Amino acid sequence: MRRCRSSPTAGFKNRLAERAGDRFFSGSGSVPLPFFFQGVPILPPFQFQVEGVDRSTLARVGRLETPHGVVETPAFMPVGTLATVKGLTVEQLRQAQVQMVLSNTYHLALRPGSEVVAELGGLHRFMGWDGPILTDSGGFQVFSLARLTKLNDDRVVFRSHLDGSPLELSPERAVEIQEQLGADFIMCLDECPPHDVARDKVLIAVDRTTRWAERCRKSQRRVDQALLGIVQGGTHLDLRTRSAEALVALDFPGYAVGGLSVGESPAEMYTTLDGTVPLLPADKPRYLMGVGRPIDLVEAATRGIDLFDCVMPTRNGRNAMAFTSLGPIRIKNLKYQKDTRPLDERCPCPVCAHHTRAYIRHLFLVNEMLGPILVSWHNVAYYQQLLRELREAVRAGEGAEFRRLQLARWGENP
Amino acid sequence: MRRCRSSPTAGFKNRLAERAGDRFFSGSGSVPLPFFFQGVPILPPFQFQVEGVDRSTLARVGRLETPHGVVETPAFMPVGTLATVKGLTVEQLRQAQVQMVLSNTYHLALRPGSEVVAELGGLHRFMGWDGPILTDSGGFQVFSLARLTKLNDDRVVFRSHLDGSPLELSPERAVEIQEQLGADFIMCLDECPPHDVARDKVLIAVDRTTRWAERCRKSQRRVDQALLGIVQGGTHLDLRTRSAEALVALDFPGYAVGGLSVGESPAEMYTTLDGTVPLLPADKPRYLMGVGRPIDLVEAATRGIDLFDCVMPTRNGRNAMAFTSLGPIRIKNLKYQKDTRPLDERCPCPVCAHHTRAYIRHLFLVNEMLGPILVSWHNVAYYQQLLRELREAVRAGEGAEFRRLQLARWGENP
Repeated sequence: MRRCRSSPTAGFKNRLAERAGDRFFSGSGSVPLPFFFQGVPILPPFQFQVEGVDRSTLARVGRLETPHGVVETPAFMPVGTLATVKGLTVEQLRQAQVQMVLSNTYHLALRPGSEVVAELGGLHRFMGWDGPILTDSGGFQVFSLARLTKLNDDRVVFRSHLDGSPLELSPERAVEIQEQLGADFIMCLDECPPHDVARDKVLIAVDRTTRWAERCRKSQRRVDQALLGIVQGGTHLDLRTRSAEALVALDFPGYAVGGLSVGESPAEMYTTLDGTVPLLPADKPRYLMGVGRPIDLVEAATRGIDLFDCVMPTRNGRNAMAFTSLGPIRIKNLKYQKDTRPLDERCPCPVCAHHTRAYIRHLFLVNEMLGPILVSWHNVAYYQQLLRELREAVRAGEGAEFRRLQLARWGENP
Repeated sequence: MRRCRSSPTAGFKNRLAERAGDRFFSGSGSVPLPFFFQGVPILPPFQFQVEGVDRSTLARVGRLETPHGVVETPAFMPVGTLATVKGLTVEQLRQAQVQMVLSNTYHLALRPGSEVVAELGGLHRFMGWDGPILTDSGGFQVFSLARLTKLNDDRVVFRSHLDGSPLELSPERAVEIQEQLGADFIMCLDECPPHDVARDKVLIAVDRTTRWAERCRKSQRRVDQALLGIVQGGTHLDLRTRSAEALVALDFPGYAVGGLSVGESPAEMYTTLDGTVPLLPADKPRYLMGVGRPIDLVEAATRGIDLFDCVMPTRNGRNAMAFTSLGPIRIKNLKYQKDTRPLDERCPCPVCAHHTRAYIRHLFLVNEMLGPILVSWHNVAYYQQLLRELREAVRAGEGAEFRRLQLARWGENP
């Protein structure tokens, strides 16, 4: 392994100090500073350290410090849309060795409302998860789930997917909601156009995303949250470059790659990552939003991505698909009727320690909710296990070998 | 506390020894004996010891030894109809301090089939629960859920509630299925008439239940399961007496009171228990089937009942009703929107340790499955907690005081 200990993100710390100082001495800002010692604000422990880079791929292992604990990267965040990773208790998340969860601003803003969450002590207390949390900006859902009625540089106006009620989101409001929720990482509002849109629309989205990112940064009041920029640009490498350069100039403490996994092929996604990741600062965390299948995690991590999120382990788990080290299996299949093996014979998770394929198949066939629970739990644990093994491989300088082995194991059915 | 250490159930042990010996030397029986030491069958550790009787009520505390561990009585069994207590993992059951679970023969015989469960190593291994299990005979579901087509002394013919396919059950088949499932406690097939049926029909059911009980006993092949008789007779005390006397003469290792909680009033149920429980041997466990609300547990335990089962904690939990030490609450109610208290402030369960009413209400309002999971889990833990406190009170000779206090706490809303 090439040793590549980068220094802490000094720029980020300095910027925080500056902003915290501003507000401390001016007395402005409605959100209290999180840590005081004898009247002096103490900086929250955001820090990212690349502990090592792989010998033959761009993969790296890192240590991401947050106010709610450390995340070893590359890391996968299961999705807790409505302040719950569907079907799993926080204890089960911990047993699956989950380090950080994602929650959805759009959904929480509608129900129960970000003000309610704030009043109840913030998202960590609300959902009983004391580890790190990341919230998205709500933008993705506004563009994909809600019915858009107006979009201009100022803001986006849309109708709720629940009852059609009119709502709007601006960069400032996206930050405000996320400050009420209180996650450790929050995201800039971005415009995420569909995959099949014309290039000029993507260009407009890129530039709007940059302007919105600047406004998000300016509107940030809390100093105990790290705000990440989101690179857009579809599969157009020149637009990705344009987006990345503009955002890097704004000096965010971390960068997400958005607008992927929205309908393009895996090959297009990987090519886009090949062109985009090297544009991002090496000493800051890189987050690939909404990705993906186990193979996508391996392909993207070996291209230098540090963070992932996806509904796949839980959504597919509810639909009786279990991820295993030999590829996914459909547990309802008749061939598992008397199969006394665990879902994955290589898996150390509590589900695989205690339950057989035959039992879990039975649960699904009789519509018992324990079926979706157990397969979701295993899948989340499997994703954690996969990245744990990947981190070990990268530490040993064997990322390429790890990828080769995994791809061979998964075969035609990744 | 009156010290009332009864001796182990010598009759039961002798009968087991006799039967085991019979089969060992004759070599008959297709089910292998469970424990051997140098060719000699070792008796399974079924034993019931009344450790103490209350000073001012008929409540007693006992110790029920089974091949899968000890149950302190009075005890409540959550219902795992299809080899799963709905929504809860076996780990969560243990954390709720559940000692024994009930599973339903009728449902398991239909799906996945008792032969399949046997082939997979029996019910304990199938569901991953290594504690004691009790299975009912299937009779209750045949009479309540299925469509009956023929009932005579020989057997009952009915149609599956799932697909209408024709099925039948006899005392011998009920035992055979339960031997394939392999629970620790199995139940005689009984006829459980509806609450509002005429007295002469109840008499017929009582006598048929006695004849079936005798056939069940004769058909029992395994020696590592305790077969319990079921007293019928509706709310007719003379018929309860007739039933109890006939079954006690057959010397079962324990007795259930069936045919209650089928539509009669609580007062009728308690009066029936007043008349029935004293007819049952003091040194054997007494099981009140299908009961009930927390207040019913207290009322029945102080009348000398040792075992209970009911779907109420899980079914009501799925429907957003939480049992608490101050009575049940409907967690969807608007008044809990910002209530940061746990479901029950006196409850030590994991749900109450980590989650607020506000959060659990949110989960139900947005249809997240974690809502039903958490309230089911709490309710099951609450039932265990209630009986634990009741056992402590009885050990201190304060059963009557405990009942008085509980009833006062629950008030108008038990």
